[in-house]
Amino acid sequence: MAKKVAVLAVNPVNGAGLFQYLEAFFENEIPYKTFAVADAAQIRTNSGVSLQADDVVANLKGKEDEYDALVFACGDAMPKFGENAGKPFNQDMLAVIKAFDDKGKLLAGHCAAALLFDNLGIGMGKRVALHPFIQSAVKGCIGTDEKAVVEGNIYTAQTENAIPSLLPELLKALK
Amino acid sequence: MAKKVAVLAVNPVNGAGLFQYLEAFFENEIPYKTFAVADAAQIRTNSGVSLQADDVVANLKGKEDEYDALVFACGDAMPKFGENAGKPFNQDMLAVIKAFDDKGKLLAGHCAAALLFDNLGIGMGKRVALHPFIQSAVKGCIGTDEKAVVEGNIYTAQTENAIPSLLPELLKALK
Repeated sequence: MAKKVAVLAVNPVNGAGLFQYLEAFFENEIPYKTFAVADAAQIRTNSGVSLQADDVVANLKGKEDEYDALVFACGDAMPKFGENAGKPFNQDMLAVIKAFDDKGKLLAGHCAAALLFDNLGIGMGKRVALHPFIQSAVKGCIGTDEKAVVEGNIYTAQTENAIPSLLPELLKALK
Repeated sequence: MAKKVAVLAVNPVNGAGLFQYLEAFFENEIPYKTFAVADAAQIRTNSGVSLQADDVVANLKGKEDEYDALVFACGDAMPKFGENAGKPFNQDMLAVIKAFDDKGKLLAGHCAAALLFDNLGIGMGKRVALHPFIQSAVKGCIGTDEKAVVEGNIYTAQTENAIPSLLPELLKALK
């Protein structure tokens, strides 16, 4: 039976990244629910298009057991993450990511996903794909310049342009 | 100076296709406006996410001169196009595509875009990329099995997965 996926979308989110996951899940009949990393479910893409997530990340907290996997869809919110890290929705996001890993569930994401995982002590000693600009910023994970890396429960892609390299293995794991 | 692009989004639209164009335009500072091929500007992706276009295609009709290029973002509306062809928004879409071509403007799109062009008598004798299932359905255009084809003012990609092959030339033409 297909696994159920929770998809985190930051605000703003890179629409090309987000929808490469969502359309692939839809076409492969993998159930998913989208959660805005924001105070409200209505967020926007980097490109300025307003879209409606299914819910907000606060409502995913404590309900991690309802899902088999977590996908982190990166976006232009992330370069400013440092100055917004204390906001409740970002704290909720970090708690949710940590809970999924603690429960041994699949974690996937592109761009800055691996840096978030690394900051949370997730994926220690595991190789990851991430944006070239932050390749050396990961401390416990092993930053690579590969397009996509799967190691254990961690599925990472370098940028949204590398998601096609990650999807075959991700879909296989979720079907 | 960057050219201005009108982007047509059918309802439902493939989000991975639509946002590969939009995020690339955004990152390359190419101005664009999105038009829903629908009665209202709020449409949804194949994957079920509600999103807000800037306007509806009816309001693009007659204003083609304000833009330099037209992009057709395909989606699950198209397999049912035949039964909905008479609806005003689809008639407006066809009129808009024809007007852009009549004025010699750039036309781009993936999947069924080339079939729409072909049905309108656009791109006669020109090679096009289009979904493999409809490769033999084009009559005046020359259907190919290439990922992306640029010929004259016609820029086509096979599917949303082939847009990365089309984008470099499309962006060069629009910058």
